[in-house]
Order: sequence, then C-alpha cells, then structure tokens
Amino acid sequence: MDKKGTWLTYRPDIKILDCTIRDGGLMTDCHFDDSFVKGVYQACVDSGVDYMEIGYKSSKKIFARPQYGDWKFCDEEMIRRIVGDNPSSLKIAVMADADRCDYHTDFSAKKESVIDLVRVATYIHQIPLALDMIKAFNDMGYETTVNLMAVSVVNDGELNEALEILCKSEVQTIYLVDSYGSLYGEEVQALTRKYRGFAEAGGKQVGIHTHNNQQLAYANTIEALILGASFLDCTIGGLGRGAGNCPTELLLGFLKNPRYHVRPIIKCLQEQIVPLRQKVQWGYDIPYMLTGQLNQHPRTAMEFLDGETPTDYLTFYDQIIE
Amino acid sequence: MDKKGTWLTYRPDIKILDCTIRDGGLMTDCHFDDSFVKGVYQACVDSGVDYMEIGYKSSKKIFARPQYGDWKFCDEEMIRRIVGDNPSSLKIAVMADADRCDYHTDFSAKKESVIDLVRVATYIHQIPLALDMIKAFNDMGYETTVNLMAVSVVNDGELNEALEILCKSEVQTIYLVDSYGSLYGEEVQALTRKYRGFAEAGGKQVGIHTHNNQQLAYANTIEALILGASFLDCTIGGLGRGAGNCPTELLLGFLKNPRYHVRPIIKCLQEQIVPLRQKVQWGYDIPYMLTGQLNQHPRTAMEFLDGETPTDYLTFYDQIIE
Repeated sequence: MDKKGTWLTYRPDIKILDCTIRDGGLMTDCHFDDSFVKGVYQACVDSGVDYMEIGYKSSKKIFARPQYGDWKFCDEEMIRRIVGDNPSSLKIAVMADADRCDYHTDFSAKKESVIDLVRVATYIHQIPLALDMIKAFNDMGYETTVNLMAVSVVNDGELNEALEILCKSEVQTIYLVDSYGSLYGEEVQALTRKYRGFAEAGGKQVGIHTHNNQQLAYANTIEALILGASFLDCTIGGLGRGAGNCPTELLLGFLKNPRYHVRPIIKCLQEQIVPLRQKVQWGYDIPYMLTGQLNQHPRTAMEFLDGETPTDYLTFYDQIIE
Repeated sequence: MDKKGTWLTYRPDIKILDCTIRDGGLMTDCHFDDSFVKGVYQACVDSGVDYMEIGYKSSKKIFARPQYGDWKFCDEEMIRRIVGDNPSSLKIAVMADADRCDYHTDFSAKKESVIDLVRVATYIHQIPLALDMIKAFNDMGYETTVNLMAVSVVNDGELNEALEILCKSEVQTIYLVDSYGSLYGEEVQALTRKYRGFAEAGGKQVGIHTHNNQQLAYANTIEALILGASFLDCTIGGLGRGAGNCPTELLLGFLKNPRYHVRPIIKCLQEQIVPLRQKVQWGYDIPYMLTGQLNQHPRTAMEFLDGETPTDYLTFYDQIIE
C-alpha cells in the first residue's frame, strides 16, 4: 500500500481513533455522565472519525464500584445505552489491559456485540499473555490492535524481538505508544521506521498513540503519519491522562480526506469539554513536562498536581531530579 | 560551521533568545511591573540564556502613554532601572518595527547603551526601509537581526528576492518567523533549508521564531534547529501574543549545552508567570487554533476571546470560514 501522502491528496489507509472516553477515563476513574459520552459519540459519528474507544473491559475482580464508573467495564448494555445498535459507520473499540482483564469470560462473540475492535494494552514482559488475548479476540471475531506501552524504557534488542513476535500473531495493527510523553520527533521517526519494517513484513499496519507532556503529541503524531503510520489516536480537547493526548481537532485540521469534518468536534468542545474543565484538570503543565523530559511515568506529577501546592514547581523539580 | 548535532553533544553556535517581555508585551500593551521584568531578567541570567529581548523601541509619535507601558519604548533609563549596567554575559535585545520606530533619533551609539542587539521586524513590502534601519543600527555599533514576518502568506519568488537582498546587508541573522502559527513541520523544514541556503552564501546565521496556535511552536523550533538554525526564540511559560511562543523551559530541556540550566526558569514560572495568569490569558485555545489552521492573523481570535462569549467556538468557527 502506498503510504506517501502529498499536501493536496489524502491516504485512504489513514484511520482516526478517538480515545477521549478511554484515555480521559484515567482522569475520572472512568466516570462520565451519559450526556457526555453521547456527546462524544455523536461528534465522532458526525465528524467521520473511524473508531471511538469507549472505555476499558477491566476485571470486576480487580476493580470495584463505586470507585470506578461504567467505562472501566464496558458491559454490552452500558455501551448500547449510548450507541444503541450503532447504526453508523463509526466503529466501537474497547481496551483490554493484559493481566487486568477476564478475557475468557467477559467477552461474547463479535456477532452478539456492538464492539468492533479490541485493543490489547501490554507491557513488554506481558507479551505471551497479550498473544493469548489477541488470539482469543480474533477467534471471537473482533478486529484487534496491540498497544505496546512504555517503549521509551525498553531496550532495542527486546523491542525488536517483541515486534517480530507480534507481527506473527493474528493482530492487525501494532501501536507505537509514547506512554510518558518523552519522545522527540527524531525518536518517533526512528521508531516508526522500525515498527513499519516489522509490520510490512508481517502484513500489519502501524498505529501511533502520543501524550502531550512536552507539547509534542500532535507534532509526533504527524511525524509518524508521514512515515506511514495508519492508525492515529487522538482525544477531543486532548482529554487524557496527565498532559493529555493529540487533540482530535488539530488532527482533523491537518488531514485532507473529505470524509472528515472538524465542525462537530468544535461543537463537542464547546458543549462537553469546556464544562468538564471546571471539574477535571488535564493538559500540559510543568510537572508533566518534567516527568516527560526525564522519561518517567507521570504518576508523580499527577499526585503533585492533586496536592495542596500544585504550582510549587521548584519543590517538585528538586524532588524528581534526585 | 558544523550545524549537525547529535543526541549527546551540543552545537556551540546555538543561541537562545528569550523574548518573554517583548512578545508577552503584545498581551499587556507592554505594561509589566518592574518586579516581573526583574524576575525574567534574573531567570535569563541564571539559566544561561544568551539574549533577553526586553521590549520595543517604538515611536512616541505613534504610540502614546498611558495606554502603553515602558516596554513599548525601552528608553535607556527604563532598561537600566532593571538591569543596571548589566554585569552579566546575558545580552540585551530590543525590537524595532519598520515604519513604527524613530530610528534616527531614538537610539544612541552602542557604546552609550546597555542594548546589545536590535531586531528589525519587517513585512516584505518594507524591506527597503528595513535595510536602511539595519545599516543605521550597524553603524551605531549594534548587533542586528532581521525578522521577516508573515512569510506564510508571501509567495516564493518574492521571498527568494527578499532573502537574497537581506543576505547582502550588514545584518548578522535572518529570522524565519511563523507569525500566524500556521506552519507545519515539513514547511518549517523546507523554509529553514531555503533560509540556510541564502544565509550560508552571505555568511549569515538563521533564526526561528514560532507561535503555538497549532501546538507546534516547540516542535517547529526543534525542526529548524536540527536543520541548522542557530538563533532560537522562546518565552517563559510560552508568554506571547495569542497562543504564545515556544516555551523556554521546553527548549532548555532539549538542549545539551552545560551553559544552560532549567531550574531558574522553573523558579520564574512559579514566582512570576503563575501569578500573571490570573490577569492575562495567553496560550493555546480553539480560536487561535482555527486562525492558525486557516493561515490568518490571530487578531480576530484575540478579539473574540476578549469578548463576552469566549467559549462559543462554533460561532467563531462559522464566522471565520465564511
């Protein structure tokens, strides 16, 4: 497939996956009002977005209510409460975390579900489990992707082996994931080339999922797309863990496929995202920048920003460089 | 000069120019408390930043007090009130706008001034005037740069001619300026290559000045730097017109020269920038994104955000796409 676009044409292999509810759920313990989820769903349908990731399929043995909301579990009836039988061209995705998902019992066959795509999220040491999950979801009839997390702290030899194994599996798309928002453009270029090399040999596509710790989420998404990544993750208003993600509204403004329309996303920003900002704080901030620059998980920054002195940046800086 | 860096080395030709007070002044009519300007000055000195642009040298016939503050005029005694005789390695810069600066009368010879660098800002149709200003400032003993604005709406033939003429002048550095925050990474690459081509032939350096309308200010600054730009503009906290600029704290995190230290910038963010945010709104927002995507001046977005309904994004969108 030709993966080289130009300024005035578009690549039909590009798919946009909006993960507003799933990644944003990491800021709300997966609690969202139905009106909010419906607003995001309608925006995705109307804007021509290809996939909407509506939450996690997490183990009810591990995660308990009432701490976690519906979008931690995504039971069939919860999803249908929002999308009905999903009479649209938008496909519905859920995320299944390795080691935190009862994948043998909590999924029905695709023909009984409104879910189209299951995304398997895995750390490198969980690859054998991820492979078993991919096979199970594939056998049930679902599309699958694999999201190999935290590759900025994985050594090159292990990463090569992981990509080689994953590209022999049933999965359709392998995601480059910048979990810590630490990757610079040149690193994204090198990794995209690497992922594409393995993926082409295995007949797979490559996806990109970024975080905005260094204000590079959108730029890095474009870097990967230019080098042939096909699946592009984004969230409306950048809503997502910590510094958030590549904003859907920016990405749609860059892409030229007449299938995509930015106005429904602008509407959703105004009606859903702006009010949520009164209650939930996400997006670029100095503590997130610092964990990104230091290639660390953002949890220390999230804790600091939830504390009593969220703008005491110097104290946080002095703590994390120790 | 070798303009190719690596991950673990640094290029000594790189100079950081912090324009917090000058570009930020566009959001405050150049009013800042002395304590704020002193805080930025001290942060620049302590962090190893190479130049601090402290304001405009604007015509007092055109711009009147009390609407405009000291940093619109930068009289010698105003600057010295902040920096004294500037007993540091930090150089002081001011901006002189073509057609809005009485450059024959408002500057003294360099040997009588604490100013080191005069930056001539010009639109393409003002080039003959800019050349006269460059010559005058050079004759007075100042370093000079020229900032050719709004090149995203200049055609290629005219731009080539402008660069050829400017590279024959006395100016030391020619700036690529993304006035509207509309340029994508690939465009910045192509323009940097073009600017570098003319500049090398004329023995000049290239600079980069970006805006953050599409969250690309930092990414585009890195793109230009990788391709050989030497002068990098930035502002603390991104403080600048509209969507703001490339944040100094991000840029210092990327650069490896042991001359630079990010901690004093973090301190300034906490002590000066956070309190200012209570009074002045700048930075990425949807109206700025839209003018950036449409390659328009941000003034319509600034007016809209100053109005009664700053989050009525749909109305703004429908207005500007007409």
